[in-house]
Amino acid sequence: MSIRIAFDMDGVIADCLTKELEIYNHTFNKTLLKSDLYGKKLDMIIPKEHTDYLHQCMHNKDFFKDLKVMEKSQYVLEKLSKKFEVFITSAAMEFPSSFNAKYNWLKTNFPFISDSNIVFCGDKRIVNANYLIDDHSHHFKFFCGQGIIFTAPHNIFEKGYKRVNNWSDIELLFLHE
Amino acid sequence: MSIRIAFDMDGVIADCLTKELEIYNHTFNKTLLKSDLYGKKLDMIIPKEHTDYLHQCMHNKDFFKDLKVMEKSQYVLEKLSKKFEVFITSAAMEFPSSFNAKYNWLKTNFPFISDSNIVFCGDKRIVNANYLIDDHSHHFKFFCGQGIIFTAPHNIFEKGYKRVNNWSDIELLFLHE
Repeated sequence: MSIRIAFDMDGVIADCLTKELEIYNHTFNKTLLKSDLYGKKLDMIIPKEHTDYLHQCMHNKDFFKDLKVMEKSQYVLEKLSKKFEVFITSAAMEFPSSFNAKYNWLKTNFPFISDSNIVFCGDKRIVNANYLIDDHSHHFKFFCGQGIIFTAPHNIFEKGYKRVNNWSDIELLFLHE
Repeated sequence: MSIRIAFDMDGVIADCLTKELEIYNHTFNKTLLKSDLYGKKLDMIIPKEHTDYLHQCMHNKDFFKDLKVMEKSQYVLEKLSKKFEVFITSAAMEFPSSFNAKYNWLKTNFPFISDSNIVFCGDKRIVNANYLIDDHSHHFKFFCGQGIIFTAPHNIFEKGYKRVNNWSDIELLFLHE
């Protein structure tokens, strides 16, 4: 079997956080920066009613439609997909109303990823791969392979996992070693 | 780790074929029976334009909305889910327009299956489970666990796999051994 690498979607190939902060700052007239979120999740530092509002936005199918692509992810993922079995494994069951928007976003921005290599799941213990690149380390607990944490403000102080800070790190790790 | 069992959706818990035949017979004034499909898929015995029409119907999001539940599947699956890790793994990427209908059908008919245990995928090699119950044996080729074929007219002559004919067989296999 060739090496199989599973990539999370939100926070790894899709830049959710930038849009969340844009909506938050615009709606509530704030100036929160990514650096304000080091070691914390957004819902830990904003009032509950603001979190509820943001969740409502994220449950709207249009939220995922125009997310920015993470820098260099298209270039590196296309190269990786020629050498490895590459799967996109998104915890999409959190936002069932967004299945189609997420799927269409993937087909638009990563047309070289075939339908057979897209997975919408809830719990990633079901993912059978050698590596899982994810910004949420809780997915690694029952994952059968090696979890690699993709740096995001909320996980910046987490230890105990191999870490990649960006897509150049992923390129280096899998394509130049 | 407790034992994890993955169940296919169409043909195992959802009765797709009955609806396909109903549509086919009604639209083209035919009297095809399930027994006419022993060892064959529908598209092998009907004209290509009829297959195209049926595919068009299946791409309509409403096709999956009112599918019948396979006999005894709710009762047995609920019992299994108390003893094992049970996942529903549907090759839903074949019909991206049906994500929501499929998800809603699951939530309506199998409310005890949590979001975390639902997987919409393409290629089932990505499924990490001890068993995969599926009516399509091609999914077993790269599956990491044991494939168990669920009898459907098209697979009735296939050999080489453990077979269950219905949900009573599944109950017997996992709950009374």
